[in-house]
Amino acid sequence: MTETHPINLTRYDDGHAMPFYDELAPEEPLEIRVEGKSVAVVMRTPGHDHELAVGFLFTEGIIKTAKEVFDVSTCVVAGAAGKGNAVDVALVNPGAFDFSKFSRHVFTSASCGICSRTSIDSVLRRHKPLRDRGEHVAAAVLLGLPRRLSRHQETFRRTGGLHACALFDLQGKLLVAREDVGRHNALDKLIGWALLEKRLPLSSHIVLLSGRASFEMMQKSHAAGIPIVAAISAPSSLAVEFARESGQTLAGFIRGRSMNLYTGAGRVAMRNGRT
Amino acid sequence: MTETHPINLTRYDDGHAMPFYDELAPEEPLEIRVEGKSVAVVMRTPGHDHELAVGFLFTEGIIKTAKEVFDVSTCVVAGAAGKGNAVDVALVNPGAFDFSKFSRHVFTSASCGICSRTSIDSVLRRHKPLRDRGEHVAAAVLLGLPRRLSRHQETFRRTGGLHACALFDLQGKLLVAREDVGRHNALDKLIGWALLEKRLPLSSHIVLLSGRASFEMMQKSHAAGIPIVAAISAPSSLAVEFARESGQTLAGFIRGRSMNLYTGAGRVAMRNGRT
Repeated sequence: MTETHPINLTRYDDGHAMPFYDELAPEEPLEIRVEGKSVAVVMRTPGHDHELAVGFLFTEGIIKTAKEVFDVSTCVVAGAAGKGNAVDVALVNPGAFDFSKFSRHVFTSASCGICSRTSIDSVLRRHKPLRDRGEHVAAAVLLGLPRRLSRHQETFRRTGGLHACALFDLQGKLLVAREDVGRHNALDKLIGWALLEKRLPLSSHIVLLSGRASFEMMQKSHAAGIPIVAAISAPSSLAVEFARESGQTLAGFIRGRSMNLYTGAGRVAMRNGRT
Repeated sequence: MTETHPINLTRYDDGHAMPFYDELAPEEPLEIRVEGKSVAVVMRTPGHDHELAVGFLFTEGIIKTAKEVFDVSTCVVAGAAGKGNAVDVALVNPGAFDFSKFSRHVFTSASCGICSRTSIDSVLRRHKPLRDRGEHVAAAVLLGLPRRLSRHQETFRRTGGLHACALFDLQGKLLVAREDVGRHNALDKLIGWALLEKRLPLSSHIVLLSGRASFEMMQKSHAAGIPIVAAISAPSSLAVEFARESGQTLAGFIRGRSMNLYTGAGRVAMRNGRT
């Protein structure tokens, strides 16, 4: 559970102002280093920083597999972003890491995911479509995911300020959930967890997004090999376009007993014994 | 009003699947160029692209005033990001633009706002606190802003997929509203509008954010000189910390007849004739 940040504020209610105590979602910078060199600073909610660092490096294409990671450590000496706010990723083969080649890419994409890529076409070409491996999920399982996530999303309930991602198996069992002020960070933490647990690719899994599905969220999910993305809110046009080309199933507006299936409806068993 | 993107999907409701027509929030890349050179690609909702380009350059510190801008044009030849998806900003004094100096900064911050800045301290030092110019707003005016914005936020109602920002004067009159799949873009469009209209700094204005207030949203608002930031949802811890140091008033959780005043409550007249 993510720690919150206590705050005293002025509450205004129905014409009256009064002192009030509340809790905020923590936000601090994290400097991500590779072999001691700074490659990015992201604004994130502290916690699961090692997962965030390797997840970020993986979904941005800087590392390809867990085997490239020798060690992940929190820098003891205060980093540029503040004490405890720097994580260093040591590589098995540092000589193979071409810093000059990747620095531009990393800097440019960062938490915005696509900045500076000079062609949308090249982005879509970078990802090979997922093969259909016959994964299927019951519609009732997808509809039940938001309830399962909300049981885990403690900090959001207290602060109202966090995005969450959760990973489920095809039977709807929650494997891991991560929260962050940044939606990309929450997903990078989740994928970083899978990388460090040597569970990639996540080819028999579903990821649930607490908010909207953008192009970048689809791109990151796809990098992790996740065939089914479920969002509680709306997808963007490019998220749907990407999902169509990447071979992913994209569900959105999962509310109560209904949802929208934008792509890959073939993976969803529309009826089962209970519906 | 932003155009939407039509889509045919499968709607699942209460055990039944059926074909369904819906509208999506458009998302496409925009390449921002200065004197023909690419400085960033952001994922944005098409529309108000010139405002987005100059707003981005301004809030990222690449240009300081409207006087530096000679012309803003949509590139006729298809850009790397696709036809119509590139905007070039020509400068009055191109020789003064040190591309090598800024390219790293632009690439790194992009829509994520802070990536690669190697020190949170330097970010906070970059902005001088706003002077208190005696601006005051009635609490009732702040409480009424979300309703005024929602009247303008047509596309969100249809797609559920857009962030919005709106600029108001201290009497609560809406001057301009902008929508985008990216919250930073919506704010950059709004600030870019003000820059092109030669209205900066916005020292007698309020900006309303449809969602949460993060560090970067505060930072951009502050760059435009906006003393009062009102968010419909929660601020992050760093947003509050920044507002405290920047001298901005930050209101959050504006719901019905109540709201939270995190900083700068002195600018808010808690009672007026109507409350």
